[in-house]
Amino acid sequence: MAQASNARVKVGIVGGTGYTGVELLRLLSQHPNAELTAITSRKEDGMPVADMFPNLRGRVKLAFSTPDKAPLTDCDVVFFATPHGVAMSQAQALLEAGTRIIDLAADFRLQDTAVFEKWYKMPHACPSILEESVYGIPELNRDRVAKARVVGNPGCYPTTVALGLAPLLEKGARLVDTQTLIADCKSGVSGAGRKAEVGLLFSEASDNFKAYGVAGHRHHPEITEQLERMAGGKVGLTFVPHLVPMIRGMYSTIYARILPEARGTDFQALYEKRYEGEAFVDVMPAGSLPETRSVRASNDLRIALHRPEGADLLIVLVVQDNLVKGAAGQAVQNMNVMFGLPEGTGLGHVAVLP
Amino acid sequence: MAQASNARVKVGIVGGTGYTGVELLRLLSQHPNAELTAITSRKEDGMPVADMFPNLRGRVKLAFSTPDKAPLTDCDVVFFATPHGVAMSQAQALLEAGTRIIDLAADFRLQDTAVFEKWYKMPHACPSILEESVYGIPELNRDRVAKARVVGNPGCYPTTVALGLAPLLEKGARLVDTQTLIADCKSGVSGAGRKAEVGLLFSEASDNFKAYGVAGHRHHPEITEQLERMAGGKVGLTFVPHLVPMIRGMYSTIYARILPEARGTDFQALYEKRYEGEAFVDVMPAGSLPETRSVRASNDLRIALHRPEGADLLIVLVVQDNLVKGAAGQAVQNMNVMFGLPEGTGLGHVAVLP
Amino acid sequence: MAQASNARVKVGIVGGTGYTGVELLRLLSQHPNAELTAITSRKEDGMPVADMFPNLRGRVKLAFSTPDKAPLTDCDVVFFATPHGVAMSQAQALLEAGTRIIDLAADFRLQDTAVFEKWYKMPHACPSILEESVYGIPELNRDRVAKARVVGNPGCYPTTVALGLAPLLEKGARLVDTQTLIADCKSGVSGAGRKAEVGLLFSEASDNFKAYGVAGHRHHPEITEQLERMAGGKVGLTFVPHLVPMIRGMYSTIYARILPEARGTDFQALYEKRYEGEAFVDVMPAGSLPETRSVRASNDLRIALHRPEGADLLIVLVVQDNLVKGAAGQAVQNMNVMFGLPEGTGLGHVAVLP
Amino acid sequence: MAQASNARVKVGIVGGTGYTGVELLRLLSQHPNAELTAITSRKEDGMPVADMFPNLRGRVKLAFSTPDKAPLTDCDVVFFATPHGVAMSQAQALLEAGTRIIDLAADFRLQDTAVFEKWYKMPHACPSILEESVYGIPELNRDRVAKARVVGNPGCYPTTVALGLAPLLEKGARLVDTQTLIADCKSGVSGAGRKAEVGLLFSEASDNFKAYGVAGHRHHPEITEQLERMAGGKVGLTFVPHLVPMIRGMYSTIYARILPEARGTDFQALYEKRYEGEAFVDVMPAGSLPETRSVRASNDLRIALHRPEGADLLIVLVVQDNLVKGAAGQAVQNMNVMFGLPEGTGLGHVAVLP
Repeated sequence: MAQASNARVKVGIVGGTGYTGVELLRLLSQHPNAELTAITSRKEDGMPVADMFPNLRGRVKLAFSTPDKAPLTDCDVVFFATPHGVAMSQAQALLEAGTRIIDLAADFRLQDTAVFEKWYKMPHACPSILEESVYGIPELNRDRVAKARVVGNPGCYPTTVALGLAPLLEKGARLVDTQTLIADCKSGVSGAGRKAEVGLLFSEASDNFKAYGVAGHRHHPEITEQLERMAGGKVGLTFVPHLVPMIRGMYSTIYARILPEARGTDFQALYEKRYEGEAFVDVMPAGSLPETRSVRASNDLRIALHRPEGADLLIVLVVQDNLVKGAAGQAVQNMNVMFGLPEGTGLGHVAVLP
Repeated sequence: MAQASNARVKVGIVGGTGYTGVELLRLLSQHPNAELTAITSRKEDGMPVADMFPNLRGRVKLAFSTPDKAPLTDCDVVFFATPHGVAMSQAQALLEAGTRIIDLAADFRLQDTAVFEKWYKMPHACPSILEESVYGIPELNRDRVAKARVVGNPGCYPTTVALGLAPLLEKGARLVDTQTLIADCKSGVSGAGRKAEVGLLFSEASDNFKAYGVAGHRHHPEITEQLERMAGGKVGLTFVPHLVPMIRGMYSTIYARILPEARGTDFQALYEKRYEGEAFVDVMPAGSLPETRSVRASNDLRIALHRPEGADLLIVLVVQDNLVKGAAGQAVQNMNVMFGLPEGTGLGHVAVLP
Repeated sequence: MAQASNARVKVGIVGGTGYTGVELLRLLSQHPNAELTAITSRKEDGMPVADMFPNLRGRVKLAFSTPDKAPLTDCDVVFFATPHGVAMSQAQALLEAGTRIIDLAADFRLQDTAVFEKWYKMPHACPSILEESVYGIPELNRDRVAKARVVGNPGCYPTTVALGLAPLLEKGARLVDTQTLIADCKSGVSGAGRKAEVGLLFSEASDNFKAYGVAGHRHHPEITEQLERMAGGKVGLTFVPHLVPMIRGMYSTIYARILPEARGTDFQALYEKRYEGEAFVDVMPAGSLPETRSVRASNDLRIALHRPEGADLLIVLVVQDNLVKGAAGQAVQNMNVMFGLPEGTGLGHVAVLP
Repeated sequence: MAQASNARVKVGIVGGTGYTGVELLRLLSQHPNAELTAITSRKEDGMPVADMFPNLRGRVKLAFSTPDKAPLTDCDVVFFATPHGVAMSQAQALLEAGTRIIDLAADFRLQDTAVFEKWYKMPHACPSILEESVYGIPELNRDRVAKARVVGNPGCYPTTVALGLAPLLEKGARLVDTQTLIADCKSGVSGAGRKAEVGLLFSEASDNFKAYGVAGHRHHPEITEQLERMAGGKVGLTFVPHLVPMIRGMYSTIYARILPEARGTDFQALYEKRYEGEAFVDVMPAGSLPETRSVRASNDLRIALHRPEGADLLIVLVVQDNLVKGAAGQAVQNMNVMFGLPEGTGLGHVAVLP
């Protein structure tokens, strides 16, 4: 790890009333270099954040303010924990003021604006900024993140699938059939956000399990774009998300057909080498069975490989906390990279188990 | 048990899109004498109930219809599984058509209209019907229920506290201090209904415990009115409801100070005698520890008594399924009583454990 | 449905202290033709079953007795809800007495004794009885079940996968690639039984998700044997079971590659036709998203088909309650078939939702 | 807060395979002054702790070792996260070596050895060490903790009740009736420890609620001893613990009858003053409704007061995380006090919500 730093990073948060918002507050309030400067919410102007999120009582003194009162352009970086479409409408003004942007929504994730517009049902407000934006998974593109003015913080599912498949696809590797990939993914309910919807009620989601979005999910094109960038060509992926009756946690079971010429590959060694030195990606011993609770409330992502006897198939198991490595933690990791801080700063939380 | 009957009871349900509605449908669709005739919902006109509640697929063919299309006056009985205030606005017309009413909301629970208006913030629409209505706990007033044209089906908390304290208060018994009663009650989340509210989300209510409504809860005056009716005088009750991260189930821990002159009472025998022959009230052996799962999805209510050494205090533990004995099951039980059916008809479900 | 019957079936249960045991008791105590005659447990001799399982208080008067005291040979049928290896040691004596057997363990599931011995680490005690035994999924082999003296009641996972794939494999259909089938399955925790193991504790299994048994699970050879019987040849299946933090419920997400020559198949129609008239298999409308709670505590199994655009892949989603259609309910269904009762007798329970 | 310190405290843990053990490891591994030196387990000798608790992978390199190999006497302090009876058998040797002791079991909680022996069914091995030991709630007796060689770390329930009632009882205050106190307490399942018991299984404890230990619980005499110390006389307390289907969290609803002469007391001001400046005790605004999740995985304890209209009754609501302020966190807090570190060192974790 690099040296501890005394640098101060002035931080603003737009729209901090959802789960990624409160998680950013939890992480940033314990971050030694972050100076929480402003948090905006049109609806909750004047309300102390600790009144909405009682875990912050005594820890975060900030109150929500309307965007016009909050000095966002004084910040070094602004996180957008907003619905899709907000960040792109405010990006230009911030960049002009020298403020960098980390968007936790989808505005700067998809490079293909036609795909964005198809899935998010809105035109992209600033294609030229999108062009310079960087997809923020430091383990995949650390150098670009470091220099980025705008980071599109990845979706939760895409983080697990991209990191789970990267060693198999990068650099034109011919290891697995890229046309028949399957990602059977499972998410805790907090992934759906803090929205008052019947389907997310305790009495609906508890003691229950189901797939959803099988006919089409917004993370599908996002994952595909990333895999295709890695693979340097078309990729065929089947993606089936499921809802698990737990608050946090994401589990991806990924199936990849091994190509005949790659049967002899030591996949375990390949993965260990690929992620050597990464603080937040843990390649577990071969045959391990990761659990979501092993990463609960931490920025860790763990990977385990299985290869069933008799089948030319690789099973990649990936776990993360959807709100941390899948959202707010990765955003803070990106911030650290962007501001030259040791990448793990403020992210040393050991997972909470039990 | 009385003889099985071939009687047909034509049943209508007003407002069946909540949890008491679907529970009524579950119970009535398996009831040998109930003929589900109409179910109304303004919003969901035309939608098969099984599309909203997939457990009913293949079991209930009925579709929601608007109240004007649904032949409610053709029914022998109409259940109101509606927000407060709906039943009282429709009661007169139904009664004139000879249709009896079981209201699962609060319109016919509180005899004191001033109390009703204070807690429910609306004037009572038909005080004269209220006057003839009967509070529907068959174990407490079976004869009046049998003859009632209108039954106010009790709230879930009141059912546990009324049945838990009845043997101590009825007939002017001087057994416990009626001025310092405490009911520390705990409810599963389904008790709050099928409302899209942030506080009821899985991610808010799961892995969490809290009291609510400590400053005042609508069931408080309802319980008090029942206890005072039993006791024949003023009763002082402290009532603290709590929310438990489970779907169904209600647990009431009731504390009553034993009067000096009643120290020698055999409370266990008192309760056993009081509820002898009751199919749905189970007085467990002394010292038992009831669990909510022992009544899950059944109409059973179980009571256990404890008397700590050295304290003149009786602890009454009561469990029920808030949606069954606490709502829809008791409503069906009331229907059975009203129509001269064996009281347990269609209510023989054994609790689901595990 | 056939006519209601007055037939009495005398029923014994061996080893009823686990979850399949208590579920059998719940179902059989409400079954109009079953006469619960004996339940054995060496350890709990003399204990009323309702003392162990409080949901049965007031419903089941039977007490556990040791096998020597219990008149099992007086029974028409004996259910074994025991660990593997018990039924096969007692089968001969029961059959000689004219008592039929339904084994909920694995003794009579696998026809290949070598496979049995490999996975269950014990020799098979009665290969000749195994030979005449019938694998008990009525929807697949009703006629053989009807005549069977010994039924091997299927495992929970195998029931979902066999019924989920049957229409694709039966009768030598050339519809999907039988060598690359994937079953990504998820089970509630009760599937692991009522065993005092750390991994099954609430504090370990709650708010958590994980795969297990990836390197090998006993249900894998069982599923494969059934699929190969249907397909009339070798089948290649990858099977990955996962543990879901819910009590009951099983969800199987099955992936099958469509063969080029079968691209034009109307799979929805194929499934609807195959399961037409089946009371317990519900082929949902195309594109449906089944939920485990839609079958909670019922004998229903629901299937939905998805075919992602652009991929020659069929996704079969299957839900059941692992303790009912996946165990005790299917066992009662088998009993009904064996004794000429209407198949749905005692199994009409509507699923409990919420 | 005091200055950050560079002091190193060499720490040993005896018996770290339970939940208080892994929680100590989580906290101490992030504590800037703690040097984890040894962790003992007879059964798991040689196993890296991260193999048992996967959240520690990459964070804690220590392996379990047998007590004879572990250099416990080299440590400055040894935590006992063991069954009752272990610490007292090893205390003498450690103290002689100059090693201080924090026992998370009950060996040094009860000053009255007769009471200890009644409830724990074993003689006390070292009454003279017991005599000098200090009950470790810094907010109640900080000075004595600072000087203690042996700290008896409190039980989880006692921490909430003692801190919840202290302002009412200390210094001979005549505010409430000390003979009719009631503590209706609710705990997450982790409070029962990591024991393979059927009653603690997910399938038993989930979706369920129950009281337990009503006839007698070991924390009852512990609480009473503390309350009597505060009150300077006999106290009558009814204590009813309940089990909540959540992993962590404890909620105590405490009822105290206000004495006639104390009706005018401003209890809110009393509590705020009593806990002014305390980092871990949060007296919430009057009428607040605390939730256990607001302290999840943090060392915070929150208190809210309610006084129902018309009743001379004070309701004190207290929440904590049973594994942190109720166990391991308080133990670390005690360590900080004992070694002159700023009391909040290593305990700044913001509660995890959602």
